Amino acid sequence: MGLCVDLNCDMGESFGNYKIGMDEEIVPHISSANVACGFHASDPVVMQKTVQLCKDSGTAVGAHPGFPDLSGFGRRQMKVSLAELKAMVMYQVGALKAFTTAAGLKLQHVKPHGAMYNMAGKDHDMALAICEGIAAVDPSLILLGLSGSELVKAARETGLKAASEVFADRAYEEDGSLVARTKPGAMITDENEAISRVIGMVKDHRVTAITGREVEVAADSICLHGDSPKAVLFAQRISAALQEEGIEIRPMSDIVSA
Amino acid sequence: MGLCVDLNCDMGESFGNYKIGMDEEIVPHISSANVACGFHASDPVVMQKTVQLCKDSGTAVGAHPGFPDLSGFGRRQMKVSLAELKAMVMYQVGALKAFTTAAGLKLQHVKPHGAMYNMAGKDHDMALAICEGIAAVDPSLILLGLSGSELVKAARETGLKAASEVFADRAYEEDGSLVARTKPGAMITDENEAISRVIGMVKDHRVTAITGREVEVAADSICLHGDSPKAVLFAQRISAALQEEGIEIRPMSDIVSA
Amino acid sequence: MGLCVDLNCDMGESFGNYKIGMDEEIVPHISSANVACGFHASDPVVMQKTVQLCKDSGTAVGAHPGFPDLSGFGRRQMKVSLAELKAMVMYQVGALKAFTTAAGLKLQHVKPHGAMYNMAGKDHDMALAICEGIAAVDPSLILLGLSGSELVKAARETGLKAASEVFADRAYEEDGSLVARTKPGAMITDENEAISRVIGMVKDHRVTAITGREVEVAADSICLHGDSPKAVLFAQRISAALQEEGIEIRPMSDIVSA
Amino acid sequence: MGLCVDLNCDMGESFGNYKIGMDEEIVPHISSANVACGFHASDPVVMQKTVQLCKDSGTAVGAHPGFPDLSGFGRRQMKVSLAELKAMVMYQVGALKAFTTAAGLKLQHVKPHGAMYNMAGKDHDMALAICEGIAAVDPSLILLGLSGSELVKAARETGLKAASEVFADRAYEEDGSLVARTKPGAMITDENEAISRVIGMVKDHRVTAITGREVEVAADSICLHGDSPKAVLFAQRISAALQEEGIEIRPMSDIVSA
Repeated sequence: MGLCVDLNCDMGESFGNYKIGMDEEIVPHISSANVACGFHASDPVVMQKTVQLCKDSGTAVGAHPGFPDLSGFGRRQMKVSLAELKAMVMYQVGALKAFTTAAGLKLQHVKPHGAMYNMAGKDHDMALAICEGIAAVDPSLILLGLSGSELVKAARETGLKAASEVFADRAYEEDGSLVARTKPGAMITDENEAISRVIGMVKDHRVTAITGREVEVAADSICLHGDSPKAVLFAQRISAALQEEGIEIRPMSDIVSA
Repeated sequence: MGLCVDLNCDMGESFGNYKIGMDEEIVPHISSANVACGFHASDPVVMQKTVQLCKDSGTAVGAHPGFPDLSGFGRRQMKVSLAELKAMVMYQVGALKAFTTAAGLKLQHVKPHGAMYNMAGKDHDMALAICEGIAAVDPSLILLGLSGSELVKAARETGLKAASEVFADRAYEEDGSLVARTKPGAMITDENEAISRVIGMVKDHRVTAITGREVEVAADSICLHGDSPKAVLFAQRISAALQEEGIEIRPMSDIVSA
Repeated sequence: MGLCVDLNCDMGESFGNYKIGMDEEIVPHISSANVACGFHASDPVVMQKTVQLCKDSGTAVGAHPGFPDLSGFGRRQMKVSLAELKAMVMYQVGALKAFTTAAGLKLQHVKPHGAMYNMAGKDHDMALAICEGIAAVDPSLILLGLSGSELVKAARETGLKAASEVFADRAYEEDGSLVARTKPGAMITDENEAISRVIGMVKDHRVTAITGREVEVAADSICLHGDSPKAVLFAQRISAALQEEGIEIRPMSDIVSA
Repeated sequence: MGLCVDLNCDMGESFGNYKIGMDEEIVPHISSANVACGFHASDPVVMQKTVQLCKDSGTAVGAHPGFPDLSGFGRRQMKVSLAELKAMVMYQVGALKAFTTAAGLKLQHVKPHGAMYNMAGKDHDMALAICEGIAAVDPSLILLGLSGSELVKAARETGLKAASEVFADRAYEEDGSLVARTKPGAMITDENEAISRVIGMVKDHRVTAITGREVEVAADSICLHGDSPKAVLFAQRISAALQEEGIEIRPMSDIVSA
């Protein structure tokens, strides 16, 4: 197998009468979907439809568990106990697995959402609680986390396969973490630059940090957005650019090994 | 195998800081637990603890899905669509299954809760949606429903095993349904009478309706309550009385066949 | 004062990260806004912003309480007790009143939402519980309900002022109730017909029922929709047509008397 | 007026089918009740009943707003924005005020609950957002906060009256803050010591910190617990001891001045 990378995107974030995202438009361009599980977004009907949409388009399905905070969309930090964190991940993974099982699909991965992703990326105890929760439900699941983060480390400690994620539109610090959105230069707004950075990350496992120094990254999967027509166009462009470079787009289960 | 019957009870209905039920006291006396799944009661931590409690006491675990109505404890009728009903059952069954899988247990059965149980007991379409949801997640699960109800019929149509439930403390109409609680004579308040009625239902598959006529019932499982010290004492008494009659108490998976 | 009518529209139905409705576009064309109160839609921040939007545009504010069913948008029937119904109306009216008070506005009216509106429109006990809840919080509030409905009757019994509502885009039965959406002919899809029907209702207090017979209606307020660009255009058209007929658009507090 | 102090206690924390607290037993011994508002605990029916209970016992009513976290009972830190914080306080105060208005009572005070109380006690911006929310709804409301905390300071900046609260069963740091529960010696377990400390705080405005040094405190109100038979007995004892010392128990509105 030559050079390949996964493209992942959050999906199934609608809720009841509320619609978010352009799932139908983005799904043809990605290889893995992070499907919300009803705590920060989504509901059982949306989950069922989203799994079916992924099945129809041949996109691998992952669970996207979040904090129990629908009004904050899971983006507000919550100080939950480690026992609560582990149990809420198990609950959400189990709930989504019901729909993948019913659809005859294997659940591929788990990516924590929003504040849970960010907090656990830097907090080893939280990362471990999440990974233990995942492993308890299904040890064959892949953990998808930020390259170099505590989530990826904890996954390996727990015996889970880990897929490392990079961001096309975000600047990096020298330690491989993302530059906080509040800092100037945090966002890569030039699309050509974003695409060439991503290709560099996949090919060379390196990216230029905001300080100018090169830092190592592992780029198993690229995180895309799917919430606007512009985001869909960018997904098309990055997908085309990767293929021109001979980089195959494959679900992360084809990429990571234990 | 001689005469045997299952004793089931609702468990795991606490929520966050709120405690309901005497789970630790009742669990030694029952063979099957109906564990709440977070919609009408319970939360992920309570679910995990309740599954462990059942495991420790050798009690079989079932899912107890309800309407999404925590403030009404799932007891208020809600007019949900059949698609919503099916998906919310799948979601809750999947969520609980995460905890039984993690505990190394097989999920045994599903019993709809409260208003969902009562509505679907008389509404074939609702019963079918529920049973299709269960079968989609795991066709080896047993549906536990009121003897003679639409739930039991729908389970058989769907290819699920069904366990028929009887109530020790409730009077019956001639059609095998329960006398509404609002009618005089609906509750059997005399414990000795309740116990002798139950033994009759298990041995003879018959019970005397409120009209005096005998009606047929199937008594695979007896529903107990676990919410008061008095309920725990009654569970002990009925358990002892059944054993004196040579009726063995066994989880419903040992009793029903496809 | 010459002939006048109120134009009302639901507003403030967004929630957290979820946006619904075209509030900014519709608000200039209406005289009264029904603002969601957090049970079936909205959240405190949305409520605050919506009240400010109404203030800026000179639109009168009413509370739009619904069932506690965010995932069903308050459109699913729920069998709550009369005590629960009364208390949930009081709670929601009080919550919205905090924002109107803070903005220096008087809360004008209360219109029950969705399934609560439909159920109480035909159920006198529910209607009475709702009106008693409103009166207990502020007896100067106006109840907005379907012309001829139990809500309007209960309001008068409770000593509340009542405003009677008509629909431009719905057919009527001979008893003055709306033709169920499931029946053929329920929706008036021709915009010219809808507008001429509404003008007739305001001028002559009559409308032609689906059977062809004329029925009496009271048209204090016309219900508009605000959820699509087409709905906004229709609001503009009906507003212009009313003014051409010399019918002034005024908030319902200028129209109803005790 | 001679020496006097307020006794406050959290009340109305039950929810739906779930009961917490011994409200009926504690209410005769306190002068001010902090009534939960449906975000971290309670529901509209419980709020209505609790306000009536307070009215019947002549106890002043305050609002006890918390984070929107029912499963965490408002005790988990949540990083909400200042705009969200302000609006969620306004919402909850307004909701409770509906019930006091209906009961013919004046709402006396607002005490933030749990994690909101603790976070805002040390974070001036949060404290200010809360106080601005309260003042926007009703500038005559009293803010009840920990003696010396940012909440009390922010109240005064906002033009609200502030009542300073002390704890009988907690040790103090030299800066007047409470010793964290995780540290040894944080709890005053000896009831006689607790009572004599409280009397000292009321009479001398001083308490011995855990380091041995004397620190100043303002003791307008003493916080009691109401969640166990033992807590009720302690409320009786402290109430009796205060009266023996000639310290009158009065609602905080009689104690604080602008």
